[in-house]
Amino acid sequence: MDRQLPPSRTGYARQVSISDVPAGTPGLFITFEGGDGAGKSTQAAKLTAALESSGHTVVRTREPGGTPVGEQLRSLVLEHGNGEIDARTEALIFAASRAAHVAQVIRPAVERGEVVVCDRFIDSSVAYQGSGRSLGTDDVRQLNIWATEGFTPDLTVLLDVDPGQGRLRRTANEAAEDRLESEPDTFHLRIRRAFLEQARTEPNRYLVLDAGRPVEELAATILAKVQELLP
Amino acid sequence: MDRQLPPSRTGYARQVSISDVPAGTPGLFITFEGGDGAGKSTQAAKLTAALESSGHTVVRTREPGGTPVGEQLRSLVLEHGNGEIDARTEALIFAASRAAHVAQVIRPAVERGEVVVCDRFIDSSVAYQGSGRSLGTDDVRQLNIWATEGFTPDLTVLLDVDPGQGRLRRTANEAAEDRLESEPDTFHLRIRRAFLEQARTEPNRYLVLDAGRPVEELAATILAKVQELLP
Repeated sequence: MDRQLPPSRTGYARQVSISDVPAGTPGLFITFEGGDGAGKSTQAAKLTAALESSGHTVVRTREPGGTPVGEQLRSLVLEHGNGEIDARTEALIFAASRAAHVAQVIRPAVERGEVVVCDRFIDSSVAYQGSGRSLGTDDVRQLNIWATEGFTPDLTVLLDVDPGQGRLRRTANEAAEDRLESEPDTFHLRIRRAFLEQARTEPNRYLVLDAGRPVEELAATILAKVQELLP
Repeated sequence: MDRQLPPSRTGYARQVSISDVPAGTPGLFITFEGGDGAGKSTQAAKLTAALESSGHTVVRTREPGGTPVGEQLRSLVLEHGNGEIDARTEALIFAASRAAHVAQVIRPAVERGEVVVCDRFIDSSVAYQGSGRSLGTDDVRQLNIWATEGFTPDLTVLLDVDPGQGRLRRTANEAAEDRLESEPDTFHLRIRRAFLEQARTEPNRYLVLDAGRPVEELAATILAKVQELLP
């Protein structure tokens, strides 16, 4: 159980930075991050198909959600019409969904030796609630380290997208924007910067790619990186 | 905004103990705590009636719940049948409900000069999730201080009840036990001890009463204490 760090005695595993968590569990945990419309789902699907075709067992999942309780929390926090939801409540609902997801789905699969491909993880909360909602990136990261007992991706693929381009892409694909997508471009610009800042501080965990590159070229680059990490 | 403390720069307002938070807001925030079956609802109702009859505006509320999003979170975490809910997820759902409750209901009412009477608050999470679920009382308290931005009761009435007596009382009154009530007596014994320990460390905020005393005698004692604190 290399990854499962207890919180420190004084709380929130404050002294543990994500890059300190040793790897060594049997499987692989890969997350996709980036603004809305960056193409995360497309690339997660392509990676999953490529890995499965070479014989790997892959669990493809997403956040918020991924468990029965998590899917209910997802509806509560993303759909319009659930009444006012302040920033702290929003951050805590995402953290609750993530705690269930790690405990019930992600950690067990990685410990069985499988590959988990997850659309969004802690870095999204740090960007959206920490920076976008101005709760503070350190506080939101610590909250989520506590929620997940320090369970950390082996690789995070950041698909970097200009907020205006992201909005064009997703409105071309989807019927309506959810509570977070419908925030103004200034909100999404803060989020882009927060993702890039996280990648800068943890270069070993991140693969940062321009989301505007051709889909197949991105897929090949991501697969090559993942193959380096596979046991 | 005396009570509304920002989290410390390093997160979670770690250095702030609840008793450090200055009073001085116009209204009064009173919480009832204790094991299941202690008589909290009965005493909260009696106190509310007594204060209203002497002309005070009283908001009577409860946790988890008290807001539209909070009531949905309440159903999710207390009802059986929502799938597995691990301890961290449970603690985070309670904290999310509380963040909404403070932001939307409790703090605004106290700032308008009203009296808020609330059935359960942070101390219940510290007892149930921190001690009962063994997540650690310090961690759960810090999580909730962050969730509420340090908003703290002026008075907490602890109705101390023996777990066996509490179970007899609530099964006499109610159709079925919820997810937490149906835990074994050893769980409820840990909770009782955690409440008493919190009261010991913050004697100025707590009024500890034997829940076995006659209902009217308890009500009179609580009202007398509240009258001391009213502006």
